[in-house]
Amino acid sequence: MSTFGKIFKVTTYGESHCKSVGCIVDGVPPGLDLTEADIQPQLTRRRPGQSKLSTPRNEADQVIIQSGTEFGKTLGTPIGMIVNNKDQRPHDYTETNKDSDGFPRPSHADYTYLSKYGIKASSGGGRSSARETIGRVAAGAIAEKVLKLKSNVEIVAFVSAVGPVSMNRDPSDPKFIELLNTITRDQVDESGPIRCPDSETAAKMTKLVEEHRDAKDSVGGVVTCVVRNIPVGLGEPVFDKLEASIAHAMLSIPATKGFEIGSGFTGATMSGSKHNDPFYKDPETGKFRTTTNYSGGIQGGITNGENIYFSVAFKPPATISQEQKTANYKGEEGVLAARGRHDPNVVPRAIPIVEAMAALVLADALLIQAARESTFSYIQKSSA
Amino acid sequence: MSTFGKIFKVTTYGESHCKSVGCIVDGVPPGLDLTEADIQPQLTRRRPGQSKLSTPRNEADQVIIQSGTEFGKTLGTPIGMIVNNKDQRPHDYTETNKDSDGFPRPSHADYTYLSKYGIKASSGGGRSSARETIGRVAAGAIAEKVLKLKSNVEIVAFVSAVGPVSMNRDPSDPKFIELLNTITRDQVDESGPIRCPDSETAAKMTKLVEEHRDAKDSVGGVVTCVVRNIPVGLGEPVFDKLEASIAHAMLSIPATKGFEIGSGFTGATMSGSKHNDPFYKDPETGKFRTTTNYSGGIQGGITNGENIYFSVAFKPPATISQEQKTANYKGEEGVLAARGRHDPNVVPRAIPIVEAMAALVLADALLIQAARESTFSYIQKSSA
Amino acid sequence: MSTFGKIFKVTTYGESHCKSVGCIVDGVPPGLDLTEADIQPQLTRRRPGQSKLSTPRNEADQVIIQSGTEFGKTLGTPIGMIVNNKDQRPHDYTETNKDSDGFPRPSHADYTYLSKYGIKASSGGGRSSARETIGRVAAGAIAEKVLKLKSNVEIVAFVSAVGPVSMNRDPSDPKFIELLNTITRDQVDESGPIRCPDSETAAKMTKLVEEHRDAKDSVGGVVTCVVRNIPVGLGEPVFDKLEASIAHAMLSIPATKGFEIGSGFTGATMSGSKHNDPFYKDPETGKFRTTTNYSGGIQGGITNGENIYFSVAFKPPATISQEQKTANYKGEEGVLAARGRHDPNVVPRAIPIVEAMAALVLADALLIQAARESTFSYIQKSSA
Amino acid sequence: MSTFGKIFKVTTYGESHCKSVGCIVDGVPPGLDLTEADIQPQLTRRRPGQSKLSTPRNEADQVIIQSGTEFGKTLGTPIGMIVNNKDQRPHDYTETNKDSDGFPRPSHADYTYLSKYGIKASSGGGRSSARETIGRVAAGAIAEKVLKLKSNVEIVAFVSAVGPVSMNRDPSDPKFIELLNTITRDQVDESGPIRCPDSETAAKMTKLVEEHRDAKDSVGGVVTCVVRNIPVGLGEPVFDKLEASIAHAMLSIPATKGFEIGSGFTGATMSGSKHNDPFYKDPETGKFRTTTNYSGGIQGGITNGENIYFSVAFKPPATISQEQKTANYKGEEGVLAARGRHDPNVVPRAIPIVEAMAALVLADALLIQAARESTFSYIQKSSA
Repeated sequence: MSTFGKIFKVTTYGESHCKSVGCIVDGVPPGLDLTEADIQPQLTRRRPGQSKLSTPRNEADQVIIQSGTEFGKTLGTPIGMIVNNKDQRPHDYTETNKDSDGFPRPSHADYTYLSKYGIKASSGGGRSSARETIGRVAAGAIAEKVLKLKSNVEIVAFVSAVGPVSMNRDPSDPKFIELLNTITRDQVDESGPIRCPDSETAAKMTKLVEEHRDAKDSVGGVVTCVVRNIPVGLGEPVFDKLEASIAHAMLSIPATKGFEIGSGFTGATMSGSKHNDPFYKDPETGKFRTTTNYSGGIQGGITNGENIYFSVAFKPPATISQEQKTANYKGEEGVLAARGRHDPNVVPRAIPIVEAMAALVLADALLIQAARESTFSYIQKSSA
Repeated sequence: MSTFGKIFKVTTYGESHCKSVGCIVDGVPPGLDLTEADIQPQLTRRRPGQSKLSTPRNEADQVIIQSGTEFGKTLGTPIGMIVNNKDQRPHDYTETNKDSDGFPRPSHADYTYLSKYGIKASSGGGRSSARETIGRVAAGAIAEKVLKLKSNVEIVAFVSAVGPVSMNRDPSDPKFIELLNTITRDQVDESGPIRCPDSETAAKMTKLVEEHRDAKDSVGGVVTCVVRNIPVGLGEPVFDKLEASIAHAMLSIPATKGFEIGSGFTGATMSGSKHNDPFYKDPETGKFRTTTNYSGGIQGGITNGENIYFSVAFKPPATISQEQKTANYKGEEGVLAARGRHDPNVVPRAIPIVEAMAALVLADALLIQAARESTFSYIQKSSA
Repeated sequence: MSTFGKIFKVTTYGESHCKSVGCIVDGVPPGLDLTEADIQPQLTRRRPGQSKLSTPRNEADQVIIQSGTEFGKTLGTPIGMIVNNKDQRPHDYTETNKDSDGFPRPSHADYTYLSKYGIKASSGGGRSSARETIGRVAAGAIAEKVLKLKSNVEIVAFVSAVGPVSMNRDPSDPKFIELLNTITRDQVDESGPIRCPDSETAAKMTKLVEEHRDAKDSVGGVVTCVVRNIPVGLGEPVFDKLEASIAHAMLSIPATKGFEIGSGFTGATMSGSKHNDPFYKDPETGKFRTTTNYSGGIQGGITNGENIYFSVAFKPPATISQEQKTANYKGEEGVLAARGRHDPNVVPRAIPIVEAMAALVLADALLIQAARESTFSYIQKSSA
Repeated sequence: MSTFGKIFKVTTYGESHCKSVGCIVDGVPPGLDLTEADIQPQLTRRRPGQSKLSTPRNEADQVIIQSGTEFGKTLGTPIGMIVNNKDQRPHDYTETNKDSDGFPRPSHADYTYLSKYGIKASSGGGRSSARETIGRVAAGAIAEKVLKLKSNVEIVAFVSAVGPVSMNRDPSDPKFIELLNTITRDQVDESGPIRCPDSETAAKMTKLVEEHRDAKDSVGGVVTCVVRNIPVGLGEPVFDKLEASIAHAMLSIPATKGFEIGSGFTGATMSGSKHNDPFYKDPETGKFRTTTNYSGGIQGGITNGENIYFSVAFKPPATISQEQKTANYKGEEGVLAARGRHDPNVVPRAIPIVEAMAALVLADALLIQAARESTFSYIQKSSA
């Protein structure tokens, strides 16, 4: 469905070549300072055409708030937001093959959309296009503002792998843990268009992407994200454990194939005696903390106040310019090659999308837990 | 929350030491042959005490259908199911430390539950206990029956890794792909208590678990699951892409840390020219298929009819009998060791839970898509 | 569906002749003192067989809490509750007509259930039976406790009409308004089995019910309900205006045909100059109030702190012992008469059900608004 | 919340003076012929300024489809729709009183919105404005198209009462029943701006509205609506009985105070022997029907194929131009009078809103039941 969240909810609309894309964000706290200036930066970060590494289509993606604010403050009513599509023509992606429509693009959503709906947008990715994520990023920017005001929550994602070139993200490595403690969005963006904060690895990644671009090929990658300063107690057992909601959010991003939180798949190889996170009391802050953080900030589906960190695997983009042997709908074999230039690698652009989806999950969890905690003052006290 | 699904919905209740655990399953198709005999086998498969490898507590776990059937057929009304808890005593898990309650167990849910709710079950895992999954397995058994009748859907999970001992699950490996095509539950169970169908690997896994048991330690693992014969067109863009819903389901299982579908994290290392799944028409069946299946049976969030396969990472169980340095709630350092015997490895018991959660996601997706397809006969025809 | 509510949620199961009926209540605040003794009184109030006016079947209806509490306090986890069905035999309601099953009972749910599900419970009302409401009443008792602790919320329903015999419920009448201000459950129950607090009217109602009983007929009625001390600000525009949620709740009760809140249908006959409720500040309490209350405590879908009051119309029970001309499923005309004794009037027993459904709506609205208000401290202050 | 429906869902945004109002409709069947021309007629019917009886503000209300269609056919993806607000100025409704903002308008939503959100739109009704209903009417037009194609479903609402002037809507009256069988939208609109199909009553209503207009007062009314040709089997027990969902929908419309279905409050006065609807088989159509229809087409919460009919009570508009004694927020008494011209009666404009909300409920119920019925072919047959 096109709605995400229970209390802080976003509903998105729009596909690659319609009039506009956008969203309605419901459940936004009232009285929040909010203008387009709060939302545009993340939209700009996800925009293609920012470097030679990404697709040269220039999309301005200016968001316009339609409702839910007055004099720069939210009213508590739904925030409608739209971003006009500049390119509203159909048939933009016409393939070289004459009978182009007859060839569903391999590993794209052409065949499954047509099977599911009995009809599909005549060109481009339709609803499976990355343009759909604009509404998410816009909504996420509002969620982030709420989280920031609540407890200075910081959400920072970065590229940790491109193809086989990978940063070390071993949960036992103090350097990795320290990176999670300190990395900022500015650092990520300043690290260059590949958005990997390790400059040596970034250089290798860039080279790899360029090689794939030159080979009319594409390559996958991994985005890692950390959330700091999150309150203790968020996440709803049992089906809406926080990691389950985050996994849902991440796997709803186009082209994702995997998710791991905390120790992740590495944790599956470990022994309990090493993996368990012992508790201690921080003498400075008085906070109850853990000495290690294999849990990734979540235990029993609920935040424990430590950093949440997770990684998301992205497959290589399905649209490549080199020729591919495949079949048309009639089952006739043929050769397909996408016309024009295409992103050889999407992970740098996925950064703000990952951050937005994380923010949406957390803002929703925050409000649901706030409802519960509001009862402590009259229930647990009455009962003490 | 304790409800999962949109049309085919399960709501569970119960913790480790209350009167009973159970669930209500809503949206079950009417007229389905259903008795306890359909549900008990999977409950029995998840029961502890089935081998020397798992915890020796003997839980009979007999399910009793309360409602929603008559004369062995479903009425279309909610199916209430309960499994009585034999052990309803509190304080079963008393730790060796005198001030046991004061020590939240590391990497368990004690601290977070207490933080979230301001109160927690005095012993055992409460709602975070594995007993909570009984309701899921019972509900999943019904979902499976529906899927079976629909198109002979087969869901088979198996243990693919224990600690660092792993089967090959490279999506490029024809042997792995062939295993996914053919593996049955009988084969999984016959492979021995570790439930890994590769006998050589199974032996190593068993040894590793025994070593951990003897060292009063625990070890993690990976469960891999395949779904065969699933109809084309299931999964709801954009937020409820099928892989997003499956990820949500899997990460809601206790002790999970990661999820990957199709090529997964390996896919992130690949090039598009290799990763794309070319189409062809199967000359025998006339079905439109793909020659490879890095997509894992889902493209654009929608099934394409190929096998769905995915893996779930489980951390090592947090409860271990060896001593752990940690702190009590006051922040005083101390040593904690769980009394009694505990599962050194939970992945074999997770098999039916993974299968159940997969079935729940798929039955729900099936019904939602059926609602849409029901309109084709009067809408797309009228419009043709 | 069988789930009601968004944060404070109840899911019910059970029909007239299955093993048990019950519910799972999710979202209950933790730390609440709760035992069966809190729930049983309202269950007992809805029990049939309490007087010569109602059906003589003796149903004990003892509730047993299955989960979610420990040492008499809620854990914040789902509360499972069951009430065993004493009568689990099928075919209890066999009609006099030989081919009884062939005759769908007029204005009962036999025909529509069979049409909808393709199958129906062989006897009794199945899921449309009044026994289904047991789960609601049990859940409502918990909701009430929460509301009571929050702000001493009082919910009192009473019978205001039986057939054409009606109390005055003109919203302009000071006597009616005063009754709403003061009526208690004790007064309602002490007024006699008809549960109409106006003794003169109650006597006429009783006589009317007896006449219908003797004539093997049945008669409808109206239940009026008042909610006092409700906080300002509950109800979620636009689709979940509080009155919309209450109307939904009330019309989900079996045999209901109408709902009106505040001035209701009388309000439709009025002029704005009379109907508008002017504001004033109560010099004693300092509260901002209205001098009249045609709004029924809700304006723009949101509570204003005045009494919420509403009425619910119940049709005459469909099951009557006198002969009725009707047709069997084949379309053959025939005569049908229910065997045994049946409730000639259900409105007194509907009292606790109406109260329970009101409590469920309000507890849910309370928690949702609490989530919003929790943000005021960090958002509106930051922005001031 | 601002979302309505489970499968066929609408989410609306917008208030009286923001950039635009609109909605996203999710779950629309794919392949449906749909352009603005399908939606505009109902929007035009709800537009003010259509006669001397309604407010003279001229709002063009041109809808623009943003997404979800291509070449005039729906894609199955969300339909975004917007209607620009011409009047985006704040402070349009400035009251005569100098300190106007300080006076919450009696029986309007000013006070409750401010209490709930801690902030409110500075002028007009904000989100409680009737402009919010534009999104509903637009969405309802799509729902209607689906229902029409399914089984020629017809939904016709009309004004049945204005103040004390009322058409006969006695469910026992053959003339009323016949009207429900035959009334069309054209007849309703041709009956004049008051939209009451009984010309004699219409004349009295018009006179009454004019009197109120001249007295700077307002007056309430009742809208009655009939739904014909609805399939058997719609509506989901127990909480989402069809009448419960319709009641929810209707009471979510601004200014509504009551709802009754079928016999309604009159039914509460009746005896079962008269109220029960006997079955018969229509010799011509072979359909299983009822000879009377006090049930209003719904039994046990499920449609039986007879006409659904219901009535909705609207209070007199709260905004009146005559002076009203009230208090400002400080509690100081004062006099308030709305500037400008205001609708003395809104029921004629409510007609398309009532029709839209009915269509939304029914389209959703249709799809949910279709999901269930889709299983009959493989479940009930397998089990037969």
